[in-house]
Amino acid sequence: MASAMVNRGGCRIMKSVSAVLGTRFYAKIATGTDIVSAAPNVSLQKARTWDEGLDSKFSTTPLKDIFKDKKVVIFGLPGAYTGVCSNKHVPPYKENIDKFKAKGIDSVICVAINDPYTMNAWAEKLQAKEAIEFYGDFDGSFHKSLELVTDLSGALLGTRSERWSAYVVDGKVKALNVEEAPSDVKVSGADTILGQI
Amino acid sequence: MASAMVNRGGCRIMKSVSAVLGTRFYAKIATGTDIVSAAPNVSLQKARTWDEGLDSKFSTTPLKDIFKDKKVVIFGLPGAYTGVCSNKHVPPYKENIDKFKAKGIDSVICVAINDPYTMNAWAEKLQAKEAIEFYGDFDGSFHKSLELVTDLSGALLGTRSERWSAYVVDGKVKALNVEEAPSDVKVSGADTILGQI
Repeated sequence: MASAMVNRGGCRIMKSVSAVLGTRFYAKIATGTDIVSAAPNVSLQKARTWDEGLDSKFSTTPLKDIFKDKKVVIFGLPGAYTGVCSNKHVPPYKENIDKFKAKGIDSVICVAINDPYTMNAWAEKLQAKEAIEFYGDFDGSFHKSLELVTDLSGALLGTRSERWSAYVVDGKVKALNVEEAPSDVKVSGADTILGQI
Repeated sequence: MASAMVNRGGCRIMKSVSAVLGTRFYAKIATGTDIVSAAPNVSLQKARTWDEGLDSKFSTTPLKDIFKDKKVVIFGLPGAYTGVCSNKHVPPYKENIDKFKAKGIDSVICVAINDPYTMNAWAEKLQAKEAIEFYGDFDGSFHKSLELVTDLSGALLGTRSERWSAYVVDGKVKALNVEEAPSDVKVSGADTILGQI
C-alpha cells in the first residue's frame, strides 16, 4: 500500500489519524505523486559560486532534467547554516553515499529555500559537494508547489522548507518522509530512506 | 542643501533630474529622513551562528538601538556570497575602518536581505566581523520600509536590497547613495561616504 511509505514524524499510524483530522498532512506531494507534474514549470538552481552563476548566464535546471529516467534520493531542509541541517541532516547522507550508490541511486540531492551561492558556500564548508548535489530553490516555488513550506520567522528564517526526504524513481515518489517539526531528524535522515529503497 | 547629499548613480545633478522625472528616485528614505520612524516596528538581526541564535532566543535588534545617539555608516547590498558584494563592496569598508573611527563613526554596518546565520558565515569568510557589524534583514521588512528593494530573480536571488550606503546621525540620514544598478559600486563605496562625513 503506497501510503504506508509516507512517513510523517515518528509514527505512521498517528500520521494517518492526523491525515483524517487534517493536521499537518497537507503536502501536495505524496507517494505516487509525479514530482515533475506536481511542480509544473519549476526549476531548481544548481549550487555554484557567483562567478560560475555569471558564466552560466544564471541558468536553472528543470525538474525533468533532475528526475527523468533516474533514481533519486532528495532531501529538503530549512536552511543553509542552520544547526540541525549542518550537524545532523547532511552528514549521514554524505557518509552513506556509497550505500546509496550500491543501491543504484543516481543522485542524492539536498535542496533548501536559499539562493544557489549560499547553498554552494555551505556545501563547501560541509565538504559535501562531491557526494551530494546541492540545489537552491531561491523563490521557494518548488517547495510551495509541493506544499512543503513552513513559516520559520520565529527562528529568523522566514518562509522555508519543511524537513523532508523522498525516494523518487523516474519522477514518481516511491517514499516520502516529512518531519513533524523542522527541528527533528526522526524520519528524514539517511538511515530511514536507505531502508526504503 | 540636504538633497545635494543624495547620490544615485554617478551624477548628483542627473539624479536630481531623475527625481523630477520620477525614474528610480522612489526610495522613501532620503536625506533628512528619520530612519527609525521610516521603518516603524522593524528590527534587524545581528549576524550570528545558529547556536548563538538559539542561545539568544532568536532575539532581534530594534532600529533605535542601532541608531539612537550614534553616528552610523550603513551600507546595504544584494546578498551574501554574491560577487560584487564580496569583492568590491565590503573590503574597502573593512580596510578603511580606522578612517571611519577617526571621523567619530560609532559603527559601520553591513545589511542585506539574508538570514543572520548566512550573513555571519559570509562575514567570517570575508574576515570582516571585527571591523564591520553585519545584520540580516531576513524578511526584507527594513528594506521594504525604506523602498530600497529590487527584484533580482534574474540573478537567482529574488527580492533583495538595492546597493546603497547612508551616513546616519542619531537616526537622521545625512547622506544617502543608491546605485543605479545593483551590480555597480560607483556611489555606495567606502571612499564616497568617507568624503560625506
